[in-house]
Amino acid sequence: MTAGEDNGVNGVSQKHAPTTKVIGIRRETINVWERRAPLSPDHVKQLVSKGIKVLVQPMNRRVHAMWEYVQAGAEESEDLSEADLILSVKQVEANELLPNKTFAFFSHTIKAQKDNMPLLDKVLEQNVQLIDYEMMTNDSGRRVVMFGKWAGHVGAINILHGMGLRLLALGFNTPFMNIALAHNYLDMEAAKKSLNQVGKQIEQGDIPPAMGPLIFVVTGTGNVSQVRSATCFIKLCNCRTAQTLTRDDHLRRIDGKYSEKFNVADYEAHSDQYESAFAKEIAPYASVIINGILWHPSQPRLLKTDDAVKLLTPKISVQRVVPGQEKLPHRLIAICDISADPEGSIEFVRKCTTVDKPFYIYDQKHVETDSFDQKSGVLICSIDNMPCQMAKEATRHFGQLLLPYVYQMLKCQPDESFEEQKGMSDTIKRAIIAQNGRLTPKYEYIAALRAAQRAK
Amino acid sequence: MTAGEDNGVNGVSQKHAPTTKVIGIRRETINVWERRAPLSPDHVKQLVSKGIKVLVQPMNRRVHAMWEYVQAGAEESEDLSEADLILSVKQVEANELLPNKTFAFFSHTIKAQKDNMPLLDKVLEQNVQLIDYEMMTNDSGRRVVMFGKWAGHVGAINILHGMGLRLLALGFNTPFMNIALAHNYLDMEAAKKSLNQVGKQIEQGDIPPAMGPLIFVVTGTGNVSQVRSATCFIKLCNCRTAQTLTRDDHLRRIDGKYSEKFNVADYEAHSDQYESAFAKEIAPYASVIINGILWHPSQPRLLKTDDAVKLLTPKISVQRVVPGQEKLPHRLIAICDISADPEGSIEFVRKCTTVDKPFYIYDQKHVETDSFDQKSGVLICSIDNMPCQMAKEATRHFGQLLLPYVYQMLKCQPDESFEEQKGMSDTIKRAIIAQNGRLTPKYEYIAALRAAQRAK
Repeated sequence: MTAGEDNGVNGVSQKHAPTTKVIGIRRETINVWERRAPLSPDHVKQLVSKGIKVLVQPMNRRVHAMWEYVQAGAEESEDLSEADLILSVKQVEANELLPNKTFAFFSHTIKAQKDNMPLLDKVLEQNVQLIDYEMMTNDSGRRVVMFGKWAGHVGAINILHGMGLRLLALGFNTPFMNIALAHNYLDMEAAKKSLNQVGKQIEQGDIPPAMGPLIFVVTGTGNVSQVRSATCFIKLCNCRTAQTLTRDDHLRRIDGKYSEKFNVADYEAHSDQYESAFAKEIAPYASVIINGILWHPSQPRLLKTDDAVKLLTPKISVQRVVPGQEKLPHRLIAICDISADPEGSIEFVRKCTTVDKPFYIYDQKHVETDSFDQKSGVLICSIDNMPCQMAKEATRHFGQLLLPYVYQMLKCQPDESFEEQKGMSDTIKRAIIAQNGRLTPKYEYIAALRAAQRAK
Repeated sequence: MTAGEDNGVNGVSQKHAPTTKVIGIRRETINVWERRAPLSPDHVKQLVSKGIKVLVQPMNRRVHAMWEYVQAGAEESEDLSEADLILSVKQVEANELLPNKTFAFFSHTIKAQKDNMPLLDKVLEQNVQLIDYEMMTNDSGRRVVMFGKWAGHVGAINILHGMGLRLLALGFNTPFMNIALAHNYLDMEAAKKSLNQVGKQIEQGDIPPAMGPLIFVVTGTGNVSQVRSATCFIKLCNCRTAQTLTRDDHLRRIDGKYSEKFNVADYEAHSDQYESAFAKEIAPYASVIINGILWHPSQPRLLKTDDAVKLLTPKISVQRVVPGQEKLPHRLIAICDISADPEGSIEFVRKCTTVDKPFYIYDQKHVETDSFDQKSGVLICSIDNMPCQMAKEATRHFGQLLLPYVYQMLKCQPDESFEEQKGMSDTIKRAIIAQNGRLTPKYEYIAALRAAQRAK
């Protein structure tokens, strides 16, 4: 496609546009690991070829170098005031907002999250039109732009890496020692090769027999792509016992109804009438749990805090261990919470971890420790920004999803009322949280939520 | 070579041996990272083919699985009392010694190291014949069995990995982010591939220009193999500026003598008459120092504690840094001390680090911290057991060097006096520290050293 053509997705072509539209890509400032961008240089190239001007704020930490964006036709610019639409991945500092502009990012404001309320106030004050990627859904309610799949990839790699270290501390050298943290791989290709090699070692018998069989349990139906990608990664390294758990495997109605066949509609309407058999029937057999459940407080948990006592109390006396002939203290070695939902579906996962400190050990006495030397306890990885670890590919994937909608976002009129917005799909409209100094009708509840919080 | 042939290195062949000779391989207990063994299964196979019986103590943490040794013809056995010669890599627990046996390991006793004196006492008490690998030298005084080269490989990989993290914290995403810690690579081949890919990225311009040129300085002439291997690894990732520093580059006689040409003999005889120009003329230009010097307290240091002030005081005001357009606070980013010699040739490297916690930051105020967030300071890696990180290949290499001497060691007569030992080369004789309840003549000074220590 050449400049001037229409791209078919409500594209803004040079000859029709009265004035050149301008997109700004902000730098990310949320933490040092945020190396992602909303668009990669390839996407910028496509925009530029349609006559759109792209400004990119300098950022030495971005996974694509500045020169790559410039080579793709972008301009390096600290000042984004010329832009009609400003994109970033994560929240913008409140004092960095520009009045009467359209901003799109993951705002983390729709639950009235306290940390981000000063930002929302500024959005309203400055007449910013705020589009939240998280709320961009199609007509069936499914999200259309997201990083989820990368949390699955990265989570699986991270936990296999962590198992190497934890098992070494418990007395076992295993092929998992040869798996790095996800961000140390150049790309998925390199990571897959590494996991495949580990798989070959496992096939050759390089797991000490004293360790017993390794059983991976992967949970979740909500965020399917996450779970599917984690599962396929575990299988790569020849841990064939990996199995994906769905809701009908463990959820039962307390009154026995629908015991023959799980009724999804009934569960979604009356999830408080259900209990989970996960702790009794599944967890005792799991070596590793990779949790990708989207959990709501009305739903039964997979594991409660009390369950940790049974799962993590050593089965063998530490005194009886012969050095060099160690046995595992209990079956459950590791949990990776790719949902990163503290005190959620696994209640005793009480905090998120970071890429810098990815792991901790949680034991039967409910104590958390950083030391791997502890003789009992489960290794937990609950990093909440895992896609950052594969920043280049996550950016490419996300930008690919986002690009078609960028053309529509450019038609936004921040200074018109929400009702008068034209030329954009319901997907974008559903994701506009604030406009022209007001919360949009769908999000007015945030004000009520905040009032209720203040009343507490 | 088939069973029964003579191997030419004083081999013990089955048909000549009056009784079957037995070798025991002990488990390693010094720390969880000690996955090395003195011999790999291939070496065991060679010994067995010559009619030697090999017993291997079970150890789940050994880099080669028990079944590999068994497949090579060894017997798994907790009890090694049948063995004539017992091999390990590191020190044996004092209460695990067996009386009247020959033991070979790195004993770390020849400087009367306090921690190991109870072990030495037990060696004497039990009439153990102790051979220390470190003291096995050829007639020119060069060591013949060692892991040194692997400290070089591993050190280079580790510090490149650490640079990725440190530079990210300082504001720069670099290709070094795609380098793992050395033990996460399956083998050297995999590590080299990874470094080569990073080299390609650097060639393509993936180092932010604001970072300036990266200059690696590799020091050391004493342990040549270490230094050479570190240098070749740095070059792999296309950091072509790597240079190896030798003594004549920076050592000058205080009185100006031999200023035309460095005189090695004079330096070795009068090293206290020399000073080093390293701090003034070389260190200020180094981004990374990889130190492989074998240093003696009589020799001038490369860097004194005071030198840290000049090298590590930020050149730019932290207030003036624009986010996204960071500059490096000072040129020196990282030091890897592969000599792992605290308060040695680099005085402000005051401690060794571990594989679990490989890095810390040391700043211009002489403060050490684990946090990478600190805006100034140099990243230090000074792990003292780096070859453990590449345990499989280090074991193969070490066993290859050791194997020819094993045949001689089997001729040891622990219950005879040192003077009556026959059939073994001077290389072995030079390395026998104790025999028949006494320190051998060469090592009698250890008793004097201990007496002096007690008198203090």
